[in-house]
Amino acid sequence: MIVLTVLLLAVVLTCVPYLVTIALAEDPATADASPIYGVTIPPGYKQWELIAPAEEAAPLDELRAVIGNQTALDAYQAGKLPFPDGAILVKRAWKRKQSPEFASATIPGEATTVQVMVKDARKYAATGGWGFGRFVNGKPVDEAQHRTCFACHEARVKSRDYVFTKLAP
Amino acid sequence: MIVLTVLLLAVVLTCVPYLVTIALAEDPATADASPIYGVTIPPGYKQWELIAPAEEAAPLDELRAVIGNQTALDAYQAGKLPFPDGAILVKRAWKRKQSPEFASATIPGEATTVQVMVKDARKYAATGGWGFGRFVNGKPVDEAQHRTCFACHEARVKSRDYVFTKLAP
Repeated sequence: MIVLTVLLLAVVLTCVPYLVTIALAEDPATADASPIYGVTIPPGYKQWELIAPAEEAAPLDELRAVIGNQTALDAYQAGKLPFPDGAILVKRAWKRKQSPEFASATIPGEATTVQVMVKDARKYAATGGWGFGRFVNGKPVDEAQHRTCFACHEARVKSRDYVFTKLAP
Repeated sequence: MIVLTVLLLAVVLTCVPYLVTIALAEDPATADASPIYGVTIPPGYKQWELIAPAEEAAPLDELRAVIGNQTALDAYQAGKLPFPDGAILVKRAWKRKQSPEFASATIPGEATTVQVMVKDARKYAATGGWGFGRFVNGKPVDEAQHRTCFACHEARVKSRDYVFTKLAP
């Protein structure tokens, strides 16, 4: 009985460093994934092609640019809806600020949010085939905010596969 | 003498189709090159990475996006001025129009101009190392308009290698 206890204790103690390692080495992809959807900021997204810029008036007062991966761009250029699985759209956004050189121009100030839509018809079947992620400083915002994404897209642009942004000419 | 004349005539007549071909097959790159600078719209530019969007208030009322080739992006990311030879910046511009989905948002309407800056320190030594091109519907605008490019860039952003747009954060 004592031998068994000592043996068990030895096994448990041997495991402790390993368990601590697992606990600390939290997968960054999972840590930075959006609630509900598990969407992450795609690596290299800044290099993706521009779909369209936009301007959001006060009170948000933002400049925005929606960019997309090749799968998304191919679908846009072919004018084909719905978007195929693997299509990803990213909206970059910045506070609008006065250009110091031109009174008539506004330019990007600080970055505000990065918003991501990932198409996976099966995984996200309950939300039109889209998973959503909204990030501030690289971290996803809370679940309550993520609950608003699909409702708005569904109410306004269901007929365009839930996507607001059109390819700029 | 007659033999010589006939020979000469034969040579000239043989050349005629060739000369006509040359005259008709005007190099499209040259045909669509900007006056003064000979700058053309670079192929595949729409796939280039976004540097920054901008908004231009009335009377122009435009949304704009400056994009750049890899040489330009590398220089931006390294924070290195002047830009190296081969750097190309393209400004895409659209009339701003009301978003049909959001009262607060404006989105791209029709495309207006495409403006190009090409860095070649030796070729464009007289204009800060930059060649300029301003295009409407793919065709360069007139020489008078091209005369205004460098004067404005020189007056306002000489200290930033004559480039207005900063890399959006």
